[in-house]
Amino acid sequence: MKKFRKAFAAIETLAAQTEWSDAVTLVRPEHAGARGFWPEGFRAAGVYAGIKNKRRDVAVIVSDRPASAAAVFTKNLCAAAPVDVSKNHLDCSPATMRAIVCNSGNANAATGQKGLEDARSMAAKTAAVLSLQPEEILVASTGVIGVPLPADKIIDALDDVPEQLQQGSCFDAAEAIMTTDTFPKFFALDVSLSTGTVRISGIAKGSGMICPDMATMLSFLVTDAAVEPAFLQSMLNSATARSFNAITVDGDTSTNDMVAVMAGGHGPEITPGSVDAETFYTALLELMTFLAKLIVIDGEGATKLVEIRVHGASDDRDAEAAARTVANSNLVKTAIHGEDANWGRIIGALGRSGARFEQEDLAVSFDDLTILRPGFISDFSEEEAAGILSKTSYTITISLGNGPGTAVMWTCDLSKEYVDINGSYRT
Amino acid sequence: MKKFRKAFAAIETLAAQTEWSDAVTLVRPEHAGARGFWPEGFRAAGVYAGIKNKRRDVAVIVSDRPASAAAVFTKNLCAAAPVDVSKNHLDCSPATMRAIVCNSGNANAATGQKGLEDARSMAAKTAAVLSLQPEEILVASTGVIGVPLPADKIIDALDDVPEQLQQGSCFDAAEAIMTTDTFPKFFALDVSLSTGTVRISGIAKGSGMICPDMATMLSFLVTDAAVEPAFLQSMLNSATARSFNAITVDGDTSTNDMVAVMAGGHGPEITPGSVDAETFYTALLELMTFLAKLIVIDGEGATKLVEIRVHGASDDRDAEAAARTVANSNLVKTAIHGEDANWGRIIGALGRSGARFEQEDLAVSFDDLTILRPGFISDFSEEEAAGILSKTSYTITISLGNGPGTAVMWTCDLSKEYVDINGSYRT
Repeated sequence: MKKFRKAFAAIETLAAQTEWSDAVTLVRPEHAGARGFWPEGFRAAGVYAGIKNKRRDVAVIVSDRPASAAAVFTKNLCAAAPVDVSKNHLDCSPATMRAIVCNSGNANAATGQKGLEDARSMAAKTAAVLSLQPEEILVASTGVIGVPLPADKIIDALDDVPEQLQQGSCFDAAEAIMTTDTFPKFFALDVSLSTGTVRISGIAKGSGMICPDMATMLSFLVTDAAVEPAFLQSMLNSATARSFNAITVDGDTSTNDMVAVMAGGHGPEITPGSVDAETFYTALLELMTFLAKLIVIDGEGATKLVEIRVHGASDDRDAEAAARTVANSNLVKTAIHGEDANWGRIIGALGRSGARFEQEDLAVSFDDLTILRPGFISDFSEEEAAGILSKTSYTITISLGNGPGTAVMWTCDLSKEYVDINGSYRT
Repeated sequence: MKKFRKAFAAIETLAAQTEWSDAVTLVRPEHAGARGFWPEGFRAAGVYAGIKNKRRDVAVIVSDRPASAAAVFTKNLCAAAPVDVSKNHLDCSPATMRAIVCNSGNANAATGQKGLEDARSMAAKTAAVLSLQPEEILVASTGVIGVPLPADKIIDALDDVPEQLQQGSCFDAAEAIMTTDTFPKFFALDVSLSTGTVRISGIAKGSGMICPDMATMLSFLVTDAAVEPAFLQSMLNSATARSFNAITVDGDTSTNDMVAVMAGGHGPEITPGSVDAETFYTALLELMTFLAKLIVIDGEGATKLVEIRVHGASDDRDAEAAARTVANSNLVKTAIHGEDANWGRIIGALGRSGARFEQEDLAVSFDDLTILRPGFISDFSEEEAAGILSKTSYTITISLGNGPGTAVMWTCDLSKEYVDINGSYRT
């Protein structure tokens, strides 16, 4: 399983580079198999519907009891049918859910009334095989836009779910939500609270169309903590802004984005305002940021993960505009790919970002190497710069002046492989 | 001269595809050589400063008398030094100019106080060799950002200008403003007015960083018409919005963009509100649109020129947002490159454009072939679509509904060559 070896390597490398809070214990990636990945009360399966080749393409994650649920969705005006259906279900249940069902290979977007019926059928059949109500199911899809969903194939495949559900492993489910991802994305951690330990586990998919406001990315998170739905939603909103909405691959935002979390409640309770709540939120943010970075690392054709840090902006909004414009600039991204210390392109992007600053105040560093000091003084060692730019992961720090505004984003390079992958995706 | 042969071919092909107004007579590209390109009263030169390899890299266009002048500049907050200097000169002269000087190979951007002094020196030396005042000179630069301008080389090279000035040919000047352009861009036309004929001639450069709000594009236009500066500026503003600001290659906006026009006044007078003014404006717009399309055709790595037409929007602003988002989407542009009728990506881009519409109202055509009808009905012939997508130039028409808003933009595909060109531009 080459793709799992690749996942293990990417996860181990990134985990070693990441600063984790003290309360967190990492679940080793090899434990994502049979030895136990999901928190108590959750099981998952990945089955074959035959939408695309011979690959698992339908994932289901089930809670053994009604779980608090929260989700954030794409803001794309052409949101896909499953997004509409999931929003409805979250509204009509009192924000408790029992399962998530997701297919890959077809986005069920731009599919009109039939698309809505198909998404509802997916929920109904999932409910039927698990003896649940349709409104207790969140539905998601990812893949090509504008092609009718082969709903019959999915409906048939869902029959296999009950016998395939696994307590421990996330492998099949993580694989079943992949599109052009080259490896499945998953991670779990245990969090020490004052009243015991909770686990948070998540899977994600990304690859193309990854941009702030999420793009074609999906992530499903579950925890055994007991959390009220409203509080869970507020934590999810904050953490999404700082993780999945702070990454970009190509500036495109998809029709199908969704991040959902279910809290089953077998473990300790988390109440708003408590120290435990802060510890839990920090761990949730760390896990989501970790999964977000895995998406960037596996961006279509990506070979580098670059952190863009902006400080000294007039306010956070300006800092974010600056970071986002730099992170999305094709010219910056090709320079990153070419390992070219072309800081002028960063300046060009900053200038059109809408952020307010004085040109003469700008400063830029690559890791610890100062590339540009205020007054446009640039006298760095090209050799040292080349050493940093040749790494697979580094940080570009930008100072806009002396203001309080800060932002962090993660981006990747733009390579010829991106063009290859996207030039013939549909065919 | 391979690059001139390429220019002739591109110009002839595009000219044949273009609808021209009745009053316009095209100047054949071969006449851009010694046989006469510039209007009466103008001469131009392109000389060698040695900024980049052995290529002409400094262009000068001179009027034999004070000419009405107008210009539009980049809105990038990090505007280059020559932009500042040119703005100042336009402000302090009563909007009359005698010459434009432009170097390629170095943008003189992000160069601080020294950059300003260098841009002023360029103007002063140009004035000196032509016996003019520095405030009568517009200064422009294009090339790498953040590297000090080799001003001495340019100052020295300007000594050669007086003896190189040519009445007829634009070849040297058009070549001297090229950066990654693969061919020089120039075109001229004669316009029949009630009181005689005027000529409008222009050169341009583009290639990368081409985006609405102009990106690294320069265009210098001259005419023998007699036009008041304020009226010239207002015509330039309108025509720029519909030509150079309606093209995109990669969504990046540069620090150095500038479109300038000089009207020398040897020919008939154009007064606001007259029929001649309308005829003249239409011809100016046609010439600028033509040069803008040449820039897209020669976009870095571009192999296709695609017109994006949006109608039925709530207003023109929505239409423009929709057209621009589609035109800039890397996913749409790679699909265009891959000749893949992936209309779902167009839908995805429309949905995140900010334009208001109902999903079910969307319609999309490639040339005359309907790809998507309202209600997400899509039953086109893949074979016919493939026939259109294999062409080097076609139109994508998008209807958002029944509103009055319309917009037109021109874009190109995103190819692997773009990554090649931009991965190692600086080195």
